[in-house]
Amino acid sequence: MSEASVKFELSKEYLDLVVQAVEQQDNAFILETMEGVDPADISLLLEEATSDNTKYVLDLLQNEVGAEVIEELEEDTRQDFLKELSPEEIAEYIEEMESDDAVDVINDLPVRVREEVIAAIKDPENAAHIQELMRYDEDCAGGLMAKEMIVANVNWTILQTIEEIRRQAENVEKIYSIYVVDDRQKLLGKVSVKRIILSNDNISIKDIYDEDIKAVETYMDEEEVADIMQKYDLDAVPVVNLQGKLVGRITIDDIVDVITEQAEEDMQLMSGISADVEEDDSIWAISKARLPWLMIGLVGGTLGAWAIGFFEGDLESNAALAFFIPLVMATGGNVGIQSSTLVVQSLANRSAFTESFGKRIAKMFLVAIFTGVVLAAISFGIVYIWKGDADLGKVVAISLICVIMLASFTGTSTPLILDKFGINPALASGPFITTTNDILGIIVYLAIANLLLA
Amino acid sequence: MSEASVKFELSKEYLDLVVQAVEQQDNAFILETMEGVDPADISLLLEEATSDNTKYVLDLLQNEVGAEVIEELEEDTRQDFLKELSPEEIAEYIEEMESDDAVDVINDLPVRVREEVIAAIKDPENAAHIQELMRYDEDCAGGLMAKEMIVANVNWTILQTIEEIRRQAENVEKIYSIYVVDDRQKLLGKVSVKRIILSNDNISIKDIYDEDIKAVETYMDEEEVADIMQKYDLDAVPVVNLQGKLVGRITIDDIVDVITEQAEEDMQLMSGISADVEEDDSIWAISKARLPWLMIGLVGGTLGAWAIGFFEGDLESNAALAFFIPLVMATGGNVGIQSSTLVVQSLANRSAFTESFGKRIAKMFLVAIFTGVVLAAISFGIVYIWKGDADLGKVVAISLICVIMLASFTGTSTPLILDKFGINPALASGPFITTTNDILGIIVYLAIANLLLA
Repeated sequence: MSEASVKFELSKEYLDLVVQAVEQQDNAFILETMEGVDPADISLLLEEATSDNTKYVLDLLQNEVGAEVIEELEEDTRQDFLKELSPEEIAEYIEEMESDDAVDVINDLPVRVREEVIAAIKDPENAAHIQELMRYDEDCAGGLMAKEMIVANVNWTILQTIEEIRRQAENVEKIYSIYVVDDRQKLLGKVSVKRIILSNDNISIKDIYDEDIKAVETYMDEEEVADIMQKYDLDAVPVVNLQGKLVGRITIDDIVDVITEQAEEDMQLMSGISADVEEDDSIWAISKARLPWLMIGLVGGTLGAWAIGFFEGDLESNAALAFFIPLVMATGGNVGIQSSTLVVQSLANRSAFTESFGKRIAKMFLVAIFTGVVLAAISFGIVYIWKGDADLGKVVAISLICVIMLASFTGTSTPLILDKFGINPALASGPFITTTNDILGIIVYLAIANLLLA
Repeated sequence: MSEASVKFELSKEYLDLVVQAVEQQDNAFILETMEGVDPADISLLLEEATSDNTKYVLDLLQNEVGAEVIEELEEDTRQDFLKELSPEEIAEYIEEMESDDAVDVINDLPVRVREEVIAAIKDPENAAHIQELMRYDEDCAGGLMAKEMIVANVNWTILQTIEEIRRQAENVEKIYSIYVVDDRQKLLGKVSVKRIILSNDNISIKDIYDEDIKAVETYMDEEEVADIMQKYDLDAVPVVNLQGKLVGRITIDDIVDVITEQAEEDMQLMSGISADVEEDDSIWAISKARLPWLMIGLVGGTLGAWAIGFFEGDLESNAALAFFIPLVMATGGNVGIQSSTLVVQSLANRSAFTESFGKRIAKMFLVAIFTGVVLAAISFGIVYIWKGDADLGKVVAISLICVIMLASFTGTSTPLILDKFGINPALASGPFITTTNDILGIIVYLAIANLLLA
């Protein structure tokens, strides 16, 4: 086979060629077609390969490239792949990673293997950094930060700082800013790389550093870090401990991942998917993630049926009453989701000026009355024209107003309450609240019918 | 009043003091308390102030700070504020902004004012940049990019490049990489700032630049740009035109905004809010954004009522049939939302390996059968135990399986079809599809009841 013209591409066809090359031990094909390809792309390709084949390919590539490929693999693929490697092999890749990525990979390993891997890391500073970072919770600033950064003592000159950059050149991929500290590692400020390039070698850092610097504390929640970096358009932020000592740095690429994951989580909560599944997961995994909320919906539906049962007499004497159950129910559901989403979004963009609980409820009330009256008028018209029954029209109209008010109230208050208890408020737009609103809607509608039509 | 101890804070109290200071023309108070405060924070404060007061405060501050405050204001607040300024005043602020931000602000102005503002810009290069960028659509790479960047000719030495950095130091806030071009401005590669710092002044750019560079084209959609920057962990990406000439640069802070806006838009589509409203908008604005989908829901509910009408006879002879309408409806709705959300997420993370339409539908089918059978069995049990009616139990169980399959099909196919037509697939998790599923669910349930119980 002439492979001269084959190029790397993210396709089933190319992957098949790679698998074939592995079988035939055609290392030249693999090396030639993967030459200069971004590790992120190699990672996407190997995501679809077996762990054996991935190991064969990575053994051929430079450790530096292999390390990046491993970083970019999805968590479950990576876990499977790492089972193929000895602790020493894993340690070799770990040494090529920035400390934050190294910790992410190590945390995927079984506890026993973790210790063996750390013991196998040759550079003691590297191992110490990783052990330090492993102490932090994954979801806080300490868990996001890396130890790699350029730090200059306030008493240094530009020349000394450049020497430090040279010393760290291998470790620190992107510099962003140089952080300035005193002799006790307390963070004092920063110097931009622009300033370093444009300043005379003999100038002292003391004379040029910028004291206005935003820093975050190790225990700060990752979403708070994301808010700060987004608000102030930061590409990197230094992390300090309680004593104000500089302990690490968070870069914007990690924050982009935090923002994306948060959005996905919100969407899954809103749609009643209870685990982090993707469309290409197994049928069993997808079903397992979907069944819990569907069962809650079933219980809710049963409660709804039970509620309707109380009004069996009304339904028997006036079957047309049943016609509008879906209408009232659906409107309640829609209003509830709309209300909660608005609150969820305003919680996400929280500012010191957000309105108090009371004001929010008051405003929600006015919106509910306004939309309720509009929808009630339309529905009265529909029922009256269609059924010629003004009484039934009144029942539907009044029920709609009540249900809209009720759903607005639950939709507005639930996310606020969840948020108070530290639960993701997006849950309030999910099936649990929708189900609750359904049941409330049915009861309100049939109760009003019972009162007005009896 | 002794104000010595008052500090800037994002609070109603401090804002009141600022308003009071404006009334008393106490400029010292404003200048002292806002000294060194980040413009993003001043912007958040003035978001709550009147346009008059904002103008008074910004007139006191440096134009550079004022420009940043204006950039950070929300679009509607900014539009109101800019009405207070003459074209010349606006132009003065515009001159302090990076070109991409300048264009965003100018695009908020009425067309006539835009031209006056551009005419009032003193620096001709600046005006030319802005006019060039205004040609691009807001949602594409051209609309996101700025003209400010450091560009080095491939034949330059490091020293010449440093001179260029010095010349542009005022304009380019953050350097990230230096882009390397040939004499015709064709993008050849990049040099990192680290490399500039560590290299000897006499070295030629030719010998050190990195040819591996990701670039995007001017017409590329902003979400595609976001995907690329996220995939390759880029903090800035150069933009080239069709001829491969370097025309601008997109920085990660703008991409973070794209990602956040996209997530908000998806959430609003999913919850049936038809305009970009926030909780602190007026009651009228919120109601207007919510009513369209609620009315569609009302129409859907009416169609549902009409569908139930066909089975009035069945309901009259067996009122218990009505009990389970909500259960069947809600399950269909939940399944539809779950299915569409999974597809929306896999579309967002699209890769070359995503499954074909046929395979997706087949998989959806298997998940639907599995979950359907589980839920059908449970519901049969509930109905049989509660009502002692095996026939009704069978009707509910069989309906659930059918409705789950139907909702899975619409939930899976609708986002794929919307996406094919270039419509945001998140719409498929919104009220329109939920309403459709409701109606289908009712018809299926009552039709099956009619067949089996007749």
